[in-house]
Amino acid sequence: MGEFDLIRRYFARPSQPEASGVSAGTVVGIGDDCAILQPTPGMQLAISSDMLVEGRHFLSTVNPAHLGHKALAVNLSDLAACGARPLGFTLALSLPSVNEAWLAGFSHGLFALAGAHACPLVGGDTTRGPLNICITVFGEVPPGQALLRSGAKVGDELWVSGTLGDARLALEVFRGNVSVPAEVFDAARMRMEQPAPRVALGQALRGIASAAIDVSDGLLGDLGHVLRASHAGQGTTGGVGVRINTAKAANLFASNLIAANGHPACADGHFSSKMQLDCVLAGGDDYELAFTAPAALHSAVLAAGLSTSTLVTCIGQIEAEPGVRLVDSEGQLLHNSYSSFDHFA
Amino acid sequence: MGEFDLIRRYFARPSQPEASGVSAGTVVGIGDDCAILQPTPGMQLAISSDMLVEGRHFLSTVNPAHLGHKALAVNLSDLAACGARPLGFTLALSLPSVNEAWLAGFSHGLFALAGAHACPLVGGDTTRGPLNICITVFGEVPPGQALLRSGAKVGDELWVSGTLGDARLALEVFRGNVSVPAEVFDAARMRMEQPAPRVALGQALRGIASAAIDVSDGLLGDLGHVLRASHAGQGTTGGVGVRINTAKAANLFASNLIAANGHPACADGHFSSKMQLDCVLAGGDDYELAFTAPAALHSAVLAAGLSTSTLVTCIGQIEAEPGVRLVDSEGQLLHNSYSSFDHFA
Repeated sequence: MGEFDLIRRYFARPSQPEASGVSAGTVVGIGDDCAILQPTPGMQLAISSDMLVEGRHFLSTVNPAHLGHKALAVNLSDLAACGARPLGFTLALSLPSVNEAWLAGFSHGLFALAGAHACPLVGGDTTRGPLNICITVFGEVPPGQALLRSGAKVGDELWVSGTLGDARLALEVFRGNVSVPAEVFDAARMRMEQPAPRVALGQALRGIASAAIDVSDGLLGDLGHVLRASHAGQGTTGGVGVRINTAKAANLFASNLIAANGHPACADGHFSSKMQLDCVLAGGDDYELAFTAPAALHSAVLAAGLSTSTLVTCIGQIEAEPGVRLVDSEGQLLHNSYSSFDHFA
Repeated sequence: MGEFDLIRRYFARPSQPEASGVSAGTVVGIGDDCAILQPTPGMQLAISSDMLVEGRHFLSTVNPAHLGHKALAVNLSDLAACGARPLGFTLALSLPSVNEAWLAGFSHGLFALAGAHACPLVGGDTTRGPLNICITVFGEVPPGQALLRSGAKVGDELWVSGTLGDARLALEVFRGNVSVPAEVFDAARMRMEQPAPRVALGQALRGIASAAIDVSDGLLGDLGHVLRASHAGQGTTGGVGVRINTAKAANLFASNLIAANGHPACADGHFSSKMQLDCVLAGGDDYELAFTAPAALHSAVLAAGLSTSTLVTCIGQIEAEPGVRLVDSEGQLLHNSYSSFDHFA
């Protein structure tokens, strides 16, 4: 199969603009030198690009539909963290060979998520080479309303969407480091392979959240970007700090909820509460939003969560003193020995 | 060196917005979840993405500065083909290891071209994996003025910018299929490794050209996309055809000009005029513009070339009958046996 047949068969979908007329915002889709989009006049453009490499971000054995979902999800998660509305995306794909079953699965997962977020594939590139998936996503946001990393203020509350740590639990099971019941593993693996980008929540938080980031490399590591980018006050440059209630954070572990429903989170006792907190604070691959908001807007954050059917949990507070302070439910300081994931460390 | 240090050292340049204040159009550059751009209100957005893979698009021995140039050039060439003004680009880079000399060279070549086109790097991704470079570029164009593949009309003239075939000559020398004097090879290799995207010409052709495409897979192959996307008349669907004067086309071969200046294009006679025409018509990797324009706008095309210091040559004419007809300087029909490059053929 040639390059153009491959694109026609698997990536130029009936739901795409060139086949079904022109969708709102997309003037020219797949098939010209450039895609042409018409953003809403005056809106700002939010852009993010992520590259997924076999063996690094996913295993060759992953379900291709899940991979298609995840490749777009990690990009939509960046739009969500900025509060942007998706407009479309490009896909550049390097394939070692033309495997039609793989392509059918991959494009199915990709388009299912794209459809759910009204985010059409508008163009891209295909070539032969080691398996590599690069998606660049575009969204729009009203001028000055993008959620940035730099807006956290002393006294703001720290919030996290959804649950954290389940993807890391699945990874540790794959690595043979822990064993859990099949139902727990299935749920955790689902979270690792098919994260739900918080696109609706991100938009609902515009004008409420003071800073936001998506949690991809582990909560504490990603939060560090927010703390360093923000300032304690007018004219200061040193960044801010945070105090995190680990008891509240530990509750973000979804497999916990499964356990509470009668399924032990760990059949043989190997999965300790320490490991649980590790997964939550430094797990990675969560694709939830971590964000700060003024304490006075506590109810507004809860309302944003409710209106978008997204769990939101307040787990700490921004402080002037730089650094991360972990405290227990009594407010006692705990030792912090976490580091985040770095692709080149 | 960690991922964030690598980005800071080689890709967050002093000329970038976050270090030098905010450049026109770029509100947030490298370092947040998304880049935020402010397009000119009401303008349409042109987007293109290209992925370069080691061993497929370039050899491991290529000068990294040339590679940085080319990775952006092939994308800017797509913007040029749409007549769009560059706004910025993202870079996703998969590296087998951190080679600082390579990174320094690559980023030098990349930023030199980006600077020349006022097209800042606004974001991206770095990861470890087989060498892969994915750039996505964004530009803007007034509504309805993007040059598309579908606008060629019967009677339009066919034009080509610059010269064609030199990149293919260099490739054939690398492959050991031909030998040429060192000066000819150096010039051809320069064209292969450091193509000049016709960004200014593309914008100058808005309102003049009826259709355009950038020549990356070989003139005849790329022209086929224009012919199939265009229509002979209101209500017809079968595409159009073209008649190409091969004598004029052969003159597009720049190494010819070198020969005319006293350097034989081929020292040992192995490089025939047939091979020269092959390189021009089906060479690939040219990154010139092929475009059509009404015959009545012949002078306007010449003026667009002059105003942007770009050679433009009329080599044929669009006809109602589908297909490509090659004719000699006398108008006699020649046999056409060319096919274009396909990454999966």
